[in-house]
Amino acid sequence: MSAPVVDMPLTRASVLEAHERIKPHIHLTPTLTSRTLDAFASTPRSTPLDGIANAREVTVDNAASPKIKFVIKCENLQKGGAFKIRGATHAISRLSASQSSKGVITHSSGNHAQALSIAAGSHSPPIPCTVIMPTISTPSKIAATKGYGANVVFSGSTAPEREAKVSEEQAKTGATLIPPYDHPWILLGQGTVALELIQQAEETGRKLDAIIAPCGGGGLLSGIATACEGTGIRVFGAEPRKDGANDCQRGLKAGKRVEVVKTLTIADGLRTPTGKITYGIIEKKVEGVFSVTEWEILQTVRLVLERLKVVVEPSSVVPLAVALFDEDFRRLVEKEGGEEGWNVGVVFSGGNTTVEMLGKLFAREEEFKEEQAEAYKNV
Amino acid sequence: MSAPVVDMPLTRASVLEAHERIKPHIHLTPTLTSRTLDAFASTPRSTPLDGIANAREVTVDNAASPKIKFVIKCENLQKGGAFKIRGATHAISRLSASQSSKGVITHSSGNHAQALSIAAGSHSPPIPCTVIMPTISTPSKIAATKGYGANVVFSGSTAPEREAKVSEEQAKTGATLIPPYDHPWILLGQGTVALELIQQAEETGRKLDAIIAPCGGGGLLSGIATACEGTGIRVFGAEPRKDGANDCQRGLKAGKRVEVVKTLTIADGLRTPTGKITYGIIEKKVEGVFSVTEWEILQTVRLVLERLKVVVEPSSVVPLAVALFDEDFRRLVEKEGGEEGWNVGVVFSGGNTTVEMLGKLFAREEEFKEEQAEAYKNV
Repeated sequence: MSAPVVDMPLTRASVLEAHERIKPHIHLTPTLTSRTLDAFASTPRSTPLDGIANAREVTVDNAASPKIKFVIKCENLQKGGAFKIRGATHAISRLSASQSSKGVITHSSGNHAQALSIAAGSHSPPIPCTVIMPTISTPSKIAATKGYGANVVFSGSTAPEREAKVSEEQAKTGATLIPPYDHPWILLGQGTVALELIQQAEETGRKLDAIIAPCGGGGLLSGIATACEGTGIRVFGAEPRKDGANDCQRGLKAGKRVEVVKTLTIADGLRTPTGKITYGIIEKKVEGVFSVTEWEILQTVRLVLERLKVVVEPSSVVPLAVALFDEDFRRLVEKEGGEEGWNVGVVFSGGNTTVEMLGKLFAREEEFKEEQAEAYKNV
Repeated sequence: MSAPVVDMPLTRASVLEAHERIKPHIHLTPTLTSRTLDAFASTPRSTPLDGIANAREVTVDNAASPKIKFVIKCENLQKGGAFKIRGATHAISRLSASQSSKGVITHSSGNHAQALSIAAGSHSPPIPCTVIMPTISTPSKIAATKGYGANVVFSGSTAPEREAKVSEEQAKTGATLIPPYDHPWILLGQGTVALELIQQAEETGRKLDAIIAPCGGGGLLSGIATACEGTGIRVFGAEPRKDGANDCQRGLKAGKRVEVVKTLTIADGLRTPTGKITYGIIEKKVEGVFSVTEWEILQTVRLVLERLKVVVEPSSVVPLAVALFDEDFRRLVEKEGGEEGWNVGVVFSGGNTTVEMLGKLFAREEEFKEEQAEAYKNV
């Protein structure tokens, strides 16, 4: 099982080139600003606001007091409901004629598989797309992937079983493997979101000081960091912390990439450990990675639903949660941004959820609240 | 208890003038388009799509087959979370210096009261605002209204008790009553949403054939109908049907306004009967009023949350539900729009809801589904 080896410079220029290739095929998603969120971010967390307090023991004396204005890039409104269409479309645009005729294959069961199905299906002429999914996948996910025109092939749910099935299919069809994040085509495609965010922020009069992006496999974060090189904009990563899901943060601290993570964080798009290529870029180009608790993520989902009135999946709001709740990040903004503060771009990475999933999520609110005090004991 | 008598022509020119007055103080809310919704609207309802069918006995032979493309105006993203800020801001802009100094008063416990509080509070200098609320109002609503700077005064929950309290307060302060819908200032203000919608639709290449607006007290619908006069755009109203909540539709059929309605429809912003002034305008300028069931409203909320990924209150989606489910409206579009179909503007009137309210709503899905077959027996 191997993806095509490509020798492409991982530079801002390559992100700009990727953007030219994919622009006609993706939505220019809107950006949002919110006085409510700005006010909440710019109020010390020792002050409960809207009934939302922080169980971390922040007192009036030691709470950070940053000034933050957000520009929020709504990739939840992107084609396929997530930013993943950017990398997938870019990868499809790079295939040779011979590769195109043999089709593409992937094994993600999440947003990447759907994005690749859409990108392959809307290519002219359409490119065959095979998605390896675990037999235990939810019927709605299988139906959705088939609905986008992909050929779904089932496998066992462990990584070796999945990889064996990919190799088996590749042997039959010669299809090109398009991995979900750890590939130059993918990360350069994901990075294009930063180009739009920077320009849209300027159009609303907010020149960005920083961008925070969610970090799962690291495709989006490494792509954004590459896109921002030389712009003076600092790039930060955001992870969930539950069960060590903050593998990138931990890896950077220990000086060694964490290769295996087993977590059931509600930010299910960020459960994967960071990839090899993406970690290498993040190590060099990202200023810092921060992590937040389940309760902080859930409170942020609530704020976004009730105040911004847009629907997001939990993984989407992890960057915003860092800006609202992480005292280390907030202290940094207070120190560096001073009185004027920072304009902070955050990416809402996706919005693929259902009424039922949201219901189940908020049914766990008390559980997360109780965990919250514990979560900070080891910090 | 009386509102100021104003002698203002209820014309498109007056709506244009109102727009000039309020534009600097409100958001230019975005419009959305959605291929998914267009496809769903343009598929006969005899074909279940996305697992959403219509319990009305539509067969392949008799189902209407219109072609519809939507432009959706997101007033759920408006200041205060609803279109109500338009009328309230317009009313505030019309006060004389002496009226301003004595303040304003209203007795709505919903979005209008919050809108008036915001408009009065953000006027320079701020105008005192009193809101009469029933003692039984939810604490969160009371807190929100106070949070916008209003002086909250409690009354009993019947109309006479409420009106007596307004008169009592007016006697003390000389405050001007700003009613929630049945007043020229208000309806001309609400109508401004149509001016923006028409222009934004043109910018996306969709010249509107029709606009459907929700109808509760009728301020929004009568304002939009006034704004559209002479444009060739047909205006339709949309109501919930439960417990006779479709008072305007019934009134038009009987040739006499229905003055009292008692309903617990989930579209709680549309429980009020149509006002005197607004009904008179609707009778003259609106092409038709349609109504939908609770189940149809709920299915539409789900589509909007899961596919459009924006948060709406149930009242907001009633116009969209008409276009998706009402066979009479759909037959009309099929007949008049032909092969090319219609570009239909719909207004999402507000998005003030909570995670808990949405949870309670969808917990009733089965109940509404069972009611659905009954709902069409008398049609």
